[in-house]
Amino acid sequence: MKELRVGLLGIGTVGGGTFTVLQRNQADISRRLGTHIHITLVADRNLALAKEVTGGQVTVTDDAFAVVNHPDIDVVVELIGGYTVAKELVLTAIANGKHVVTANKALLAVHGNEIFQAAANKGVIVAYEAAVAGGIPIIKALREGLSANKIEWVAGIINGTTNFILSEMRDKGLAFTEVLSEAQRLGYAEADPTFDVEGIDAAHKLTIMASIAFGIPLQFDQAYTEGITQLTTKDIQYAEELGYRVKLLGITKQSAAGVELRVHPTLIPEKRLIANVNGAMNAVLVKGDAVGPTLYYGAGAGAEPTASSVVADLIDIARAQATPFEQRVPYLGMPLDQQQPLPMLPISEISTAYYLRMRVLDKPGVLAEVTKILSDGEISIDAMMQKEPQEGEAEADIVILTHVTLEKTMDIAIKAIEGLAAIDGQVTKIRMEELGR
Amino acid sequence: MKELRVGLLGIGTVGGGTFTVLQRNQADISRRLGTHIHITLVADRNLALAKEVTGGQVTVTDDAFAVVNHPDIDVVVELIGGYTVAKELVLTAIANGKHVVTANKALLAVHGNEIFQAAANKGVIVAYEAAVAGGIPIIKALREGLSANKIEWVAGIINGTTNFILSEMRDKGLAFTEVLSEAQRLGYAEADPTFDVEGIDAAHKLTIMASIAFGIPLQFDQAYTEGITQLTTKDIQYAEELGYRVKLLGITKQSAAGVELRVHPTLIPEKRLIANVNGAMNAVLVKGDAVGPTLYYGAGAGAEPTASSVVADLIDIARAQATPFEQRVPYLGMPLDQQQPLPMLPISEISTAYYLRMRVLDKPGVLAEVTKILSDGEISIDAMMQKEPQEGEAEADIVILTHVTLEKTMDIAIKAIEGLAAIDGQVTKIRMEELGR
Repeated sequence: MKELRVGLLGIGTVGGGTFTVLQRNQADISRRLGTHIHITLVADRNLALAKEVTGGQVTVTDDAFAVVNHPDIDVVVELIGGYTVAKELVLTAIANGKHVVTANKALLAVHGNEIFQAAANKGVIVAYEAAVAGGIPIIKALREGLSANKIEWVAGIINGTTNFILSEMRDKGLAFTEVLSEAQRLGYAEADPTFDVEGIDAAHKLTIMASIAFGIPLQFDQAYTEGITQLTTKDIQYAEELGYRVKLLGITKQSAAGVELRVHPTLIPEKRLIANVNGAMNAVLVKGDAVGPTLYYGAGAGAEPTASSVVADLIDIARAQATPFEQRVPYLGMPLDQQQPLPMLPISEISTAYYLRMRVLDKPGVLAEVTKILSDGEISIDAMMQKEPQEGEAEADIVILTHVTLEKTMDIAIKAIEGLAAIDGQVTKIRMEELGR
Repeated sequence: MKELRVGLLGIGTVGGGTFTVLQRNQADISRRLGTHIHITLVADRNLALAKEVTGGQVTVTDDAFAVVNHPDIDVVVELIGGYTVAKELVLTAIANGKHVVTANKALLAVHGNEIFQAAANKGVIVAYEAAVAGGIPIIKALREGLSANKIEWVAGIINGTTNFILSEMRDKGLAFTEVLSEAQRLGYAEADPTFDVEGIDAAHKLTIMASIAFGIPLQFDQAYTEGITQLTTKDIQYAEELGYRVKLLGITKQSAAGVELRVHPTLIPEKRLIANVNGAMNAVLVKGDAVGPTLYYGAGAGAEPTASSVVADLIDIARAQATPFEQRVPYLGMPLDQQQPLPMLPISEISTAYYLRMRVLDKPGVLAEVTKILSDGEISIDAMMQKEPQEGEAEADIVILTHVTLEKTMDIAIKAIEGLAAIDGQVTKIRMEELGR
């Protein structure tokens, strides 16, 4: 087998991890593979860092284009991130006939259709196990392990930062902003946490999984995204009392009407395994028609977990490099020319159960008015909880769990409820998923 | 791509499931694959059943050898089970240059080295995703997804029957024999449940995973196997009070001393995800040096979950059939000529923590004697619980959790404890695993 000469773009956290893992496990990997994987060129703007990490064993440069244009590189590993330069580098590498490994979910979710088409035209591989759920081999599971199935839905905790924040909010009863600061201090959240806390990062990963699950093009612009910044510890506690945990889930589901693609805080029954995934860990639950529900759990970020996926991709590429294009596993499970653009449902057209919380004046008849509105909308109630007003307060919290309802129907009912004289302020709405059958 | 002509041996539960899944999802599978997978020949001793399941669309025969010797068959799917005829059929298929898919863990654990060597000599594929943990793509995860890692240990709930029984014993407080009858009535346990309840089936699957994890030959005869027939609801309850669940785990671990390969009831901290895998479900926890702990969960048995893995193997074979032998993923992750026969540790040489329960006369000084023995053996105590004697009884239960200790050291201490005058009967010993770092 031909040995693999690798050019690494970016020697930060994941790049450094990739270098370390390859070096530490080189002997075993070469025995498994029957050939060697060599990082022969490293590009980083921080040349001193690149020299330090590689220990002077590898040529380093601050010119990433020197790597993607180098004639002796077989595979480019893109670990720079972002959309702009990374895209140009990846497309140049492909144009030069090089395989690509990337951990860049934003790039793939937004420009993946173009990138994969370019790669198909040149007959090169673009591998991206590290782009979704870090070290968990979820791309391989979805694309190969479950290839016999019609996938019905995928639901994942695919952002470690927000899962860490939600776990801390629950465990310590702290508010979102307090925990965010703590997470930033610990390095679990970035200085600008928008991509994480607003669900954008999760939506990138979900977009990729949806494409594989349903054989559709990547459509990040169709994803509904709602973050955790509005979540209160009160709702987390009420959910808990009702037997639920609140998680930021990426959910994609195929129904007769079309494909749902949405990221939002979600109540999950506490008895589900995925409800018990805590801290910065990730987990993806996949429901196939033959296999039923399966779950994949592990570290979703970090130097070596992510490197584990990058290096596994390199090993796959070393094996597949001589395989004819049509014999390889298609980039997104389905060959590009076989993808079907199924209708994508806007959030108003999705169907799910709901957790509703409202503050009501503590006087007779309010509940009757609220339940009348729900009943008029043909929304059935699954559970209800009325909390005593706090000492000295005239208002109480009412929490209602509904059965599955069309979102736009729910929103009409909520507007009507908010119009009631006895209701103070807005109704808090959190979606709820059983994740069973 | 060449279309794949499949001969199916056995059209029972899994064979029927395979036929159904392939038929139902044929269109999608063909789009993903760019070719067709056709079951063209089915062998079963029950010809009427074979005709009924296949609906007259496929040639059926009661002569399995007619399938493995048929010139127009590319892949033989062996779903007969057992060691004898199945082995002859598989070896004949290989000798005839056919690829093989099998769900037969017993066959592979016991005769796998011979079978894979024969397959290597002929350059054919033997795929067996369905042999371990049913529908969970754990073989693919271990062999490919985590290929960058040095695997440190694997711990799995890999027998659904015993996990169902243990879950019921815990939930309902029923004795083993009662739940076993119930499980047999429900079809979760066979009429002769020995393979399941004595841990033999789990040891078969563990043997296969150990080979992949550590690059060693299959060595079922080195596996230590202890079932759940001696487990009492009392110990399950005490474990619960101490924050643990009891699961039948298959554990394989590499240390400086060698490889541990053992199946036995195990206490696991209740906060671990795997401790919360209930009913007939399976889960495998894999610790890699780069990725950290990862977990894979799903149905470990049943018609369609197992078929999901069989059909995924067929899809892989369709893709890999034209790939040169050395470019394919090795049968057991490591090429046969690169396997290393690491020392296998007998159970006396393993190290783990322990749960000990003893019945003691309720009088002063007993505990001092017991703890003196442990201390003399340099066994440290992690937790202890003394239960009040029941009304009218003179004896009380003492439960001790120890830190990690060499098993033979533990056994010497237990002998000494059992020799104390105040100790009634034998000490119950259950191994305990943290399954954290």
